[in-house]
Amino acid sequence: MAQTQQVKRILVIHGPNLNMLGKREPEHYGSQSLGAIDRSIKDRARELGVEVSAFQSNHEGELVEAIQAAVGQIDGLIINPAAFTHTSVAIRDAVLLLDVPVVEVHLSNIHKREPFRHHSYIADVATAQITGLGPAGYIYALEALAEMIA
Amino acid sequence: MAQTQQVKRILVIHGPNLNMLGKREPEHYGSQSLGAIDRSIKDRARELGVEVSAFQSNHEGELVEAIQAAVGQIDGLIINPAAFTHTSVAIRDAVLLLDVPVVEVHLSNIHKREPFRHHSYIADVATAQITGLGPAGYIYALEALAEMIA
Amino acid sequence: MAQTQQVKRILVIHGPNLNMLGKREPEHYGSQSLGAIDRSIKDRARELGVEVSAFQSNHEGELVEAIQAAVGQIDGLIINPAAFTHTSVAIRDAVLLLDVPVVEVHLSNIHKREPFRHHSYIADVATAQITGLGPAGYIYALEALAEMIA
Amino acid sequence: MAQTQQVKRILVIHGPNLNMLGKREPEHYGSQSLGAIDRSIKDRARELGVEVSAFQSNHEGELVEAIQAAVGQIDGLIINPAAFTHTSVAIRDAVLLLDVPVVEVHLSNIHKREPFRHHSYIADVATAQITGLGPAGYIYALEALAEMIA
Amino acid sequence: MAQTQQVKRILVIHGPNLNMLGKREPEHYGSQSLGAIDRSIKDRARELGVEVSAFQSNHEGELVEAIQAAVGQIDGLIINPAAFTHTSVAIRDAVLLLDVPVVEVHLSNIHKREPFRHHSYIADVATAQITGLGPAGYIYALEALAEMIA
Amino acid sequence: MAQTQQVKRILVIHGPNLNMLGKREPEHYGSQSLGAIDRSIKDRARELGVEVSAFQSNHEGELVEAIQAAVGQIDGLIINPAAFTHTSVAIRDAVLLLDVPVVEVHLSNIHKREPFRHHSYIADVATAQITGLGPAGYIYALEALAEMIA
Amino acid sequence: MAQTQQVKRILVIHGPNLNMLGKREPEHYGSQSLGAIDRSIKDRARELGVEVSAFQSNHEGELVEAIQAAVGQIDGLIINPAAFTHTSVAIRDAVLLLDVPVVEVHLSNIHKREPFRHHSYIADVATAQITGLGPAGYIYALEALAEMIA
Amino acid sequence: MAQTQQVKRILVIHGPNLNMLGKREPEHYGSQSLGAIDRSIKDRARELGVEVSAFQSNHEGELVEAIQAAVGQIDGLIINPAAFTHTSVAIRDAVLLLDVPVVEVHLSNIHKREPFRHHSYIADVATAQITGLGPAGYIYALEALAEMIA
Amino acid sequence: MAQTQQVKRILVIHGPNLNMLGKREPEHYGSQSLGAIDRSIKDRARELGVEVSAFQSNHEGELVEAIQAAVGQIDGLIINPAAFTHTSVAIRDAVLLLDVPVVEVHLSNIHKREPFRHHSYIADVATAQITGLGPAGYIYALEALAEMIA
Amino acid sequence: MAQTQQVKRILVIHGPNLNMLGKREPEHYGSQSLGAIDRSIKDRARELGVEVSAFQSNHEGELVEAIQAAVGQIDGLIINPAAFTHTSVAIRDAVLLLDVPVVEVHLSNIHKREPFRHHSYIADVATAQITGLGPAGYIYALEALAEMIA
Amino acid sequence: MAQTQQVKRILVIHGPNLNMLGKREPEHYGSQSLGAIDRSIKDRARELGVEVSAFQSNHEGELVEAIQAAVGQIDGLIINPAAFTHTSVAIRDAVLLLDVPVVEVHLSNIHKREPFRHHSYIADVATAQITGLGPAGYIYALEALAEMIA
Amino acid sequence: MAQTQQVKRILVIHGPNLNMLGKREPEHYGSQSLGAIDRSIKDRARELGVEVSAFQSNHEGELVEAIQAAVGQIDGLIINPAAFTHTSVAIRDAVLLLDVPVVEVHLSNIHKREPFRHHSYIADVATAQITGLGPAGYIYALEALAEMIA
Repeated sequence: MAQTQQVKRILVIHGPNLNMLGKREPEHYGSQSLGAIDRSIKDRARELGVEVSAFQSNHEGELVEAIQAAVGQIDGLIINPAAFTHTSVAIRDAVLLLDVPVVEVHLSNIHKREPFRHHSYIADVATAQITGLGPAGYIYALEALAEMIA
Repeated sequence: MAQTQQVKRILVIHGPNLNMLGKREPEHYGSQSLGAIDRSIKDRARELGVEVSAFQSNHEGELVEAIQAAVGQIDGLIINPAAFTHTSVAIRDAVLLLDVPVVEVHLSNIHKREPFRHHSYIADVATAQITGLGPAGYIYALEALAEMIA
Repeated sequence: MAQTQQVKRILVIHGPNLNMLGKREPEHYGSQSLGAIDRSIKDRARELGVEVSAFQSNHEGELVEAIQAAVGQIDGLIINPAAFTHTSVAIRDAVLLLDVPVVEVHLSNIHKREPFRHHSYIADVATAQITGLGPAGYIYALEALAEMIA
Repeated sequence: MAQTQQVKRILVIHGPNLNMLGKREPEHYGSQSLGAIDRSIKDRARELGVEVSAFQSNHEGELVEAIQAAVGQIDGLIINPAAFTHTSVAIRDAVLLLDVPVVEVHLSNIHKREPFRHHSYIADVATAQITGLGPAGYIYALEALAEMIA
Repeated sequence: MAQTQQVKRILVIHGPNLNMLGKREPEHYGSQSLGAIDRSIKDRARELGVEVSAFQSNHEGELVEAIQAAVGQIDGLIINPAAFTHTSVAIRDAVLLLDVPVVEVHLSNIHKREPFRHHSYIADVATAQITGLGPAGYIYALEALAEMIA
Repeated sequence: MAQTQQVKRILVIHGPNLNMLGKREPEHYGSQSLGAIDRSIKDRARELGVEVSAFQSNHEGELVEAIQAAVGQIDGLIINPAAFTHTSVAIRDAVLLLDVPVVEVHLSNIHKREPFRHHSYIADVATAQITGLGPAGYIYALEALAEMIA
Repeated sequence: MAQTQQVKRILVIHGPNLNMLGKREPEHYGSQSLGAIDRSIKDRARELGVEVSAFQSNHEGELVEAIQAAVGQIDGLIINPAAFTHTSVAIRDAVLLLDVPVVEVHLSNIHKREPFRHHSYIADVATAQITGLGPAGYIYALEALAEMIA
Repeated sequence: MAQTQQVKRILVIHGPNLNMLGKREPEHYGSQSLGAIDRSIKDRARELGVEVSAFQSNHEGELVEAIQAAVGQIDGLIINPAAFTHTSVAIRDAVLLLDVPVVEVHLSNIHKREPFRHHSYIADVATAQITGLGPAGYIYALEALAEMIA
Repeated sequence: MAQTQQVKRILVIHGPNLNMLGKREPEHYGSQSLGAIDRSIKDRARELGVEVSAFQSNHEGELVEAIQAAVGQIDGLIINPAAFTHTSVAIRDAVLLLDVPVVEVHLSNIHKREPFRHHSYIADVATAQITGLGPAGYIYALEALAEMIA
Repeated sequence: MAQTQQVKRILVIHGPNLNMLGKREPEHYGSQSLGAIDRSIKDRARELGVEVSAFQSNHEGELVEAIQAAVGQIDGLIINPAAFTHTSVAIRDAVLLLDVPVVEVHLSNIHKREPFRHHSYIADVATAQITGLGPAGYIYALEALAEMIA
Repeated sequence: MAQTQQVKRILVIHGPNLNMLGKREPEHYGSQSLGAIDRSIKDRARELGVEVSAFQSNHEGELVEAIQAAVGQIDGLIINPAAFTHTSVAIRDAVLLLDVPVVEVHLSNIHKREPFRHHSYIADVATAQITGLGPAGYIYALEALAEMIA
Repeated sequence: MAQTQQVKRILVIHGPNLNMLGKREPEHYGSQSLGAIDRSIKDRARELGVEVSAFQSNHEGELVEAIQAAVGQIDGLIINPAAFTHTSVAIRDAVLLLDVPVVEVHLSNIHKREPFRHHSYIADVATAQITGLGPAGYIYALEALAEMIA
């Protein structure tokens, strides 16, 4: 945790296919685009006095590197690993490099979907998990982190 | 859902041993008492213009009946089934009687604990799940429900 | 078994949420209320010359005690343990205290539902099982018991 | 379902080794012969005003074909697949060709026997299942079907 | 493989209930009858200059014997074991008697259906498998075999 | 642990159906009644100079609350959860609220019975387990606790 | 068991594909034909003074009926169920109708082959099992039965 | 699906290591290079009057993005996910974004290889699967798609 | 059981590594040496009027033979098989040769340790099991046996 | 295999507790002593013109060494590993050192006993297995080996 | 293998997050940076007269391609796949393209960590595995390869 | 660890059948004898200035006792438990008595062999594991230990 800084910084990580939000499968993910979601997160961050940067990638390696780059630079992580939730030990290992609170977010309720989506490689190395609340899940994650690191 | 009423009503259900909150195992559940948690939920409800009633029991049957009594009377359910999360089909069946949004809340991150706590009989019949955010989880659940049923 | 009595006595046990019959989920349980079902069982009992008493509870402990109270007092048991079918060893143990024929009844076909509903803690300590015939299942159970204990 | 006919027709299918009923293993199957059972089913059918034909075979293929031949010709099926309950996807597929109610019957309580007898390939494509009531199970199945298709 | 013959011979084996094609469950199997399918296979065979004979049975033993009879007489096998795919070691053993290429065909996509349909006793002793292409699957199997044995 | 008290206090908890001891199934549980067992425990307690209170219930919730009420009031717990051994996370959670030694007792040898009785939700949060010694198991548990807390 | 007869009678049952012995897969089954094997069994039977009849079928139903027909007519059964070893509950049920000693024989060592060949539905209802000794296994089975029923 | 266009477009996706085709492991994959395979697919496409583009990558993220880019632009997908078949939920999710027919192709028979290759994350979201036919599998997939979207 | 003898004889068997007691891992096994434990068992035996001999070995075969030698010579067995609890069928078989009561003792609570320590090959062939009470477990086992064989 | 010798040599290995044969559990192992069994094996060996030596031990290590000592010295092995059948990889490894035929013998039918006795670490590295024929099993094993190595 | 070259070439592959070595989690991975490790490997290579090149990536696809590029160019591979050990079939497939010895290295002892880290997709296609020796593991792998390919 | 000694001492433990090295199965274990291996370990030890003693046994109990005897006397352990790797909790428990670094060595790559050889009871209580490097594995283990305890 970057102790001497004034403004707390939070990184938001979006996993594969989330760049397609609002284009397909609205029954699972709603009709809002990722850009719109990121804007609403940043709007709320401004109200809370924290700084947010967001990153999406369809490449596991880029997500790993985005988290590595944040080591020592952020005060909290919001991560929606999407499909990588269920398959990526590499992202888990990257998250283990951090020592800040981490909130895992899923737009849809993963427990209502295929059995392989019920297991998360991130959940037990995260601080908390919010699933099924749509884009609002990010906002609650942000508020929770802001509270924890205040 | 009670369509003609003015004020939306939300029921909060707390499962077994949650009456002991603040007395033991603060590493899992924090140091706030259940009374304090309920008060903060109600404070927030007042701000949001919704009505909240809360009920705790260590008896599966009483929890089943509290949910049954709410059929047709509420607009949303917040439920922390605690130990019954992992063992109660009866509470699942009671939840299935409702047709309002349901948010499952856990104070601690159940994915960091014993394997039998990773499975929930409620998760796939709920709308959403928040785990690991402590008492704040109830507040986010309340805000999310208020939003959904507005 | 009460050997010297004239009229044979049969106990009907209904498990949790069956008091809500006719109110919700008609696709699984039909539209008849539990009161109506009990009346039709008793009507048929009268024709068969047996005595029936019925008991419903949402509390595992009360069901256990209703069965305990019947030890030595009844000639047959009809039991629909509902959700407790899949979770209650205590009811199984209570049934093991009896030495009269036992018929397990389920209104819906439990084999068409979630996998956890396919296992019954009662089936292998019961004499027989009827599933999927709706309220008529109770009537057939009654006739079968009346025949067995005649 | 044959819509224009007056008298409802029901097919009774008996699986392998049931032709040996009354000859061996009375502790599982009772002492009544299959002929006697079929006669009592037909007696009851006459009272109920329905027409019953019965067919036994030790050959999976013959059972499949008996069901195929009944497609569009019957109003209900009673089936005791015996050993094929646990091994025959072909009979399951034949049953899927029908669109009439189907009641699966077992003379003995299959839940008291070897674990491999607890699974049925028919149960979840049948309407209902009766197990452990001996020959009377067929009669109840008949009455239930007669009621459903009245 | 019959080395000295001029015209290559291919056997097509259809398993149980495929004789009912076109009569029921068009969502899984399409609306074409088995006769029509066999005719189209033979039409294509004529174009390819190979000889095709086809055999359907609902009897595992007859299918086994049809394959046995083909030992040393055919140059390729197309087999749709239908329900026996998942249950017949006897057909697997018969296929092992052959030393010609074997293509397993399924009309519907077995991976979209019940879990027990995902396993095939034939797949790992066959050369190839085509699933989900409807009757065209047979044609591709024929073309592939014709190519392999040319 | 209540540090300033003179006499050490031990709570004995009996689970469901143990109130029927001496009435049924002597091959598993012997012929002594629960009252007689409790008297012999108290007799031995008097000799050891410790104070014992005993509680039986068929209601999981009441057992949970009896343990909650003992938090901070007792120096040791003897618990025979009976059927709840295998199904109750709620009692496990209540036991976790205590910080005194806990001995789990079973009258019969649970390893000789059905497989589902081989797992205990209490064993790994207890200090020790005694199984198969009948009522004497309680006496040894008492002596062991008296020794530990002396 | 046919008590009054002079000469003891033994039935030999051969399952599917064994009629192809000597034609294919010598590495598993040797090069002797089934006819030759049956002749050597009968030769040995003559020496032992017992009567042997042998039956092969590729049809599960015919094997079931051959065993049914032997009820009360034979003093011992030798059975090589071949592929049906692993899939036929119907043959198991037929074997259960007998009350004479039964020896299961496999030509090849089934433990060296695919995992699904390691389980036998017959082994635990047979008296003994001989596997991996080729045709000699039948001779030893015959000698053992002759000894048992002498 | 792009409704107004004249010529139907099909995308061919090749997964990791398929760029090495023809260089190693000919026993599994044959000796043809990927370039040669793509040329033969395009040759056949020309005959069928459809347009084909092909894409290979060893990067899961690039495959995901190639599929994303095709959303709304293609009329059918042929996909050989190679190693990602068994590990990539991200590609599955990308495929779920499409609403055109999808044919999964494997060059070798995956059922003859290691157990982990028997499961496909794509099979149940594809229309059909062809496995074990080598490069010809792509041609049949193309013909089948051309037929479906004609 | 040696019926005519005056003094009852009990054998105490200690498994591998128990000779190291008091030297290592006091958190699992306490600080008392095996010699000291044996002395306290014998002291208590003298008070109870029974004769005790004790045997420790790190060799499974020696333990088997010590039990064999006791057949017909002892009235009760106390056995702490230590590591062999989880791996030795040979010791189980030796215990099955006895027909006297057997109490299995473990110093530590095996349910708190690695999962493979939760299964015992002895528990279901023993009369009773005491786990987690340290050296006192032997004393209670002795008292229980003395009581049973009095 | 010792090629130049005249008389073929066979080693018989008996595992733990077989030295107790005839003393206990006659329902599993019969009433003959091991000495008597060895004498009858040797009698038969003399008739067959082969040389037999027999060795029993309750020590896995001694059995391993007896097999090691036989490497290059014997022409066949008969082994009844008894309890070690299910637990000893060391004996399996010793058997792998041999390159002579091996017959595994069990007196009782291991498939009728506890599930852990259904698996053998020796069966798939042996040539054949005879189970359930009592002492005669050794004789058949001897005859079979004599035949194989003649 | 490049046969005519003088100096043997070895490729060292490092998987995801290993670029962070020395920065976090020293309890698992030690405090040395990856650069330092690579330097010490190259120093040792110089002494051994072999040529080493090293490559690290957080991208599965890049690792696959680095291995592909080495086909025919190297004489040995050292690979620490890190997180991809447990999830990457693509890297396994790339390794299968090589025909040189392969040593898998893990810095920490993967058997002491989470259960999912106990399985490696590489181990059974590698020549050898070294785990738990920290950076020295690479040196031993290098020495072993140098020896093998000398 | 023996703190005051000058020369560090290392014990090498070889499990069952390793005394046969060089005599059989060279494809798994190479052609070097155990004596030769021990000599090369000692040669290298002399160079490193450490003292090595080596011990082989086919008896689990002797291996346990060799480790027990080393408690407090050695500075490091090299252990190749061979077959006992997969079956011996007793050796694991003996290893737990030590508090010096332990390196587990396997000559062959256990991951390429039968599935039961993939699990080691020693791996998670050892410091490190080397598998598949043949006799050189011991040398690397020695060097690694010498480094750790320097």
